[in-house]
Amino acid sequence: MTNQARSKSYAPGPAGSRVPFTEVALSGGEPPVRLYDTSGPGSDPAVGLPPLRLPWITGRGDVEGYEGRSPAARDDGRSAARNGEAPPQFAGERRPPLRARAGKRVTQMHYARRGEITAEMEFVATREGVEPDFVRAEVARGRAIIPNNINHPESEPMAIGRNFLVKVNANIGNSAVTSSIQEEVDKMTWATQWGADTVMDLSTGANIHTTREWIIRNSPVPIGTVPIYQALEKVNGDPTELTWDIYRDTIIEQCEQGVDYFTVHAGVLLRYVPLTAKRVTGIVSRGGSILAAWCLAHHQENFLYTNFEELCEILSAYDVAFSLGDGLRPGSIADANDDAQLSELRTLGELTEVAWSHDVQVMIEGPGHVPMHKIKENVDLQLEVCHEAPFYTLGPLTTDIAPGYDHITSAIGAAMIGMYGTAMLCYVTPKEHLGLPDRDDVKQGVIAYKIAAHAADLAKGHPGAQEWDDALSRARFDFRWRDQFALALDPDTAASYHDETLPAEGAKTAHFCSMCGPKFCSMRISQDVRDFAAGVNGNGVVADEEVVLGLKQKSEEFAAGGSQIYVPVSE
Amino acid sequence: MTNQARSKSYAPGPAGSRVPFTEVALSGGEPPVRLYDTSGPGSDPAVGLPPLRLPWITGRGDVEGYEGRSPAARDDGRSAARNGEAPPQFAGERRPPLRARAGKRVTQMHYARRGEITAEMEFVATREGVEPDFVRAEVARGRAIIPNNINHPESEPMAIGRNFLVKVNANIGNSAVTSSIQEEVDKMTWATQWGADTVMDLSTGANIHTTREWIIRNSPVPIGTVPIYQALEKVNGDPTELTWDIYRDTIIEQCEQGVDYFTVHAGVLLRYVPLTAKRVTGIVSRGGSILAAWCLAHHQENFLYTNFEELCEILSAYDVAFSLGDGLRPGSIADANDDAQLSELRTLGELTEVAWSHDVQVMIEGPGHVPMHKIKENVDLQLEVCHEAPFYTLGPLTTDIAPGYDHITSAIGAAMIGMYGTAMLCYVTPKEHLGLPDRDDVKQGVIAYKIAAHAADLAKGHPGAQEWDDALSRARFDFRWRDQFALALDPDTAASYHDETLPAEGAKTAHFCSMCGPKFCSMRISQDVRDFAAGVNGNGVVADEEVVLGLKQKSEEFAAGGSQIYVPVSE
Repeated sequence: MTNQARSKSYAPGPAGSRVPFTEVALSGGEPPVRLYDTSGPGSDPAVGLPPLRLPWITGRGDVEGYEGRSPAARDDGRSAARNGEAPPQFAGERRPPLRARAGKRVTQMHYARRGEITAEMEFVATREGVEPDFVRAEVARGRAIIPNNINHPESEPMAIGRNFLVKVNANIGNSAVTSSIQEEVDKMTWATQWGADTVMDLSTGANIHTTREWIIRNSPVPIGTVPIYQALEKVNGDPTELTWDIYRDTIIEQCEQGVDYFTVHAGVLLRYVPLTAKRVTGIVSRGGSILAAWCLAHHQENFLYTNFEELCEILSAYDVAFSLGDGLRPGSIADANDDAQLSELRTLGELTEVAWSHDVQVMIEGPGHVPMHKIKENVDLQLEVCHEAPFYTLGPLTTDIAPGYDHITSAIGAAMIGMYGTAMLCYVTPKEHLGLPDRDDVKQGVIAYKIAAHAADLAKGHPGAQEWDDALSRARFDFRWRDQFALALDPDTAASYHDETLPAEGAKTAHFCSMCGPKFCSMRISQDVRDFAAGVNGNGVVADEEVVLGLKQKSEEFAAGGSQIYVPVSE
Repeated sequence: MTNQARSKSYAPGPAGSRVPFTEVALSGGEPPVRLYDTSGPGSDPAVGLPPLRLPWITGRGDVEGYEGRSPAARDDGRSAARNGEAPPQFAGERRPPLRARAGKRVTQMHYARRGEITAEMEFVATREGVEPDFVRAEVARGRAIIPNNINHPESEPMAIGRNFLVKVNANIGNSAVTSSIQEEVDKMTWATQWGADTVMDLSTGANIHTTREWIIRNSPVPIGTVPIYQALEKVNGDPTELTWDIYRDTIIEQCEQGVDYFTVHAGVLLRYVPLTAKRVTGIVSRGGSILAAWCLAHHQENFLYTNFEELCEILSAYDVAFSLGDGLRPGSIADANDDAQLSELRTLGELTEVAWSHDVQVMIEGPGHVPMHKIKENVDLQLEVCHEAPFYTLGPLTTDIAPGYDHITSAIGAAMIGMYGTAMLCYVTPKEHLGLPDRDDVKQGVIAYKIAAHAADLAKGHPGAQEWDDALSRARFDFRWRDQFALALDPDTAASYHDETLPAEGAKTAHFCSMCGPKFCSMRISQDVRDFAAGVNGNGVVADEEVVLGLKQKSEEFAAGGSQIYVPVSE
């Protein structure tokens, strides 16, 4: 994105930091518009980003550096071992991992509950245009989270909660079939440039550990993962071989690297698995199916559920947030809101209380595929049984019939579920169900979801949300084409579409558009109507009789002036 | 679209006609799926389509052929006259125009109210899978329309009403800036191939009359227009020069040609114009702004309003339906649901009753730009004040910030307004606000709106709608890739996206997809889970204790069998 009217601007942040915004300079005497900015300061991938939050983290005196876990060959998964070739190692600064000192909890929820407004909360407050204590109170209540692992000091704090702007997550990550480290870092950077608020690295292929290292060191936004994917690679892909120890080791590995939130499918209970047997699409969550297979094979309860307290203790030492996964989410319209899905949701509610008792931040993952009339029920039930922990949903897709366009089928559901109170929307790209997203798919997914999120902000009456729409609509009505492009969610595409029909440079300042051509334009006519009618009565509220009298006079003036409705066009 | 598993199939229609469907042949023992089909029998543009309905129309004995209006040079607009070059004339069969014999009304509403089930109604009933008398009753009640001018016998009857499938309209048409007759005919054909239920020709440029002739003669779907556009061309683009006589002449010209519905902005009343003066985007409807300009210039009431009864008499003689235009629709989020918009809507309700008193079919046009939380109010009010006449909305766009992606901003609103009861959705293409849609934009717009319409059908619980989703989801779960593509709204795109990641022909039948790769696939695991768990209890409903006992046994069998969860992959 290289729109010349756009620039970074900064508001003063806590402890000398700067809170970034995108500033859009406008013409026509309009004040500049400031937009929320997720793109970060920009990094050289080989060097990584500066550790913005490091002084805040160490300054609180409750963390310690330590040697960290010893790396193992299997950390990079099966393919790496098989290939024998070492992946390119991240060459930037390596800091020893930090963790909470013994007996300490270092989560934002912990500080919030003690009444402390952290620098992270202040940063968020400035980004969102709210009071710092409001941020603190929402985090203390569990209604919002600020996912930022103390080992990912490069990230710019952001909040996920339904009383803040609706956020968007972009999934990236390689598979056994495709993709390189460089491509994945590029996708992450690209996603944040288009507005992704968090990024999940869902790699399941080669070099899992090293790919993640490169991504985290370069990411200005929180990074999420599904640790069971890596754990499964460590046991050569056989879910029956998974153990709590291997999972625990993986969790610590990722805590030390700086992952900000973990999807944990601790709600896939043994007794829920048979509830999926008669579904049209069974279990479609990868994590859910792995754990279901493990439960069945061992005839034991899900080890994430039985070890959940210990998991909480680990996460509280790094301030990693839970994203409690919906392993039994519906994979088709037919399976929406069924017993399997809603039973698991209730279990996630129980686990939320356990996590909160350890001061660990929590959000709850949601569906999936849901027809429009069943969307609201999901949010209402989630808010009730999960005690208002932030909801984080994948879409939902509102129909199954359009593979290749699931960014659209799901943007519909995402906008609606956002309106009803979902805090973060996990994007779906056009490649969903068909392949892994490439760079352009990532952009298409993020744009569709920024639309859904903003539409939800408008519908929720988020203060300030409509200013953006109004600024763009005023530019449109005034034929300030360049302002319209600069304010567009995607300035490049807006300008290029305009150029296709009217490529001449002069058309950028023309008082008409290609729909009607130069001599016939409703916007132009309507401006004249405004000028004409506005004279009737200064306050715009007129009785019918006044209008009639006023218009009669105006009509005479109009005719006397030559009935000029159109703007002269110099061609 | 050239998917080999798709073919045309036909159900027996009235009077020896055939009602078309798209039949999708499936593998795996699945029955074929029949989809609603709008693509028509296919035409050679130079020859046009056969007049399917002509025997039905003439067979009722209430119409007469006549010489028709004399063509005038100005019928093709200003540009044609200026260029001096004659446009390519349609060379297919020319039939003399038909009209109702003196004292007769030939509208479907007239027949329906008399208790007659016409061939058109039977055709619709078969297409929609309902009883013919249900169609008749809905048309008689004014809750549905069957737009089919007796001079467009080439079209296949279809219904617009909220108790039928939600329909999609595609706008095409040239402007003074761009496009040829050939391109417009091609866009119409292309739109119907992707599922457009009606097409509006909004041409404002050269050769208006001739372009329309080519389009109508080749169109298997109803064609709508906004006659004021052509009338304006006849007075060289000066709205103050418009007269009822010129408009009336244009209406008759288009009735004789075979236009099936007219957008008529008869609700733009003089007293409503000042209500738009303080809007962010004033009047954005072209028709609305033309009439507002006329009202102001002449200080007289809108001539479409004052001559509405005569208009009804004309339309009843050809069975052209009204699409009562919302000339004061909001053009931005800021202007949604304001006094100007809702005042006009109430006037459209009055006009509906007038039209119905002449047995003229009516639908009502709606916004535009509306944030999600204000959408339902539009439908509720429309149903109330317009006596349940079908609602036909443009989008609405749920935010203004995404020019270049307004097919998405508006598909969100369209899906929702469809769920609440809108009968037809007017598509918006990615070029909205920026330029005229080209062929690909037309496809993108139609696809986005077919998604919205189908999502609405699902949410409304339309009988049969979910069969399509279920068939596709079963194909997905069974890894029947070719079936999945054939059932997709856009088989070409679905298959090509899959090919990008896994181009090998073998991957079309592989039991995995590119997201997880061959050795790790949630769908595959979940199928095993199903097989495994389903053995517990044949009816799938089991008490917890039974599950535990059953699973213990199964777990032993599973381990004894080698814990094979993955399907063997032959690479």
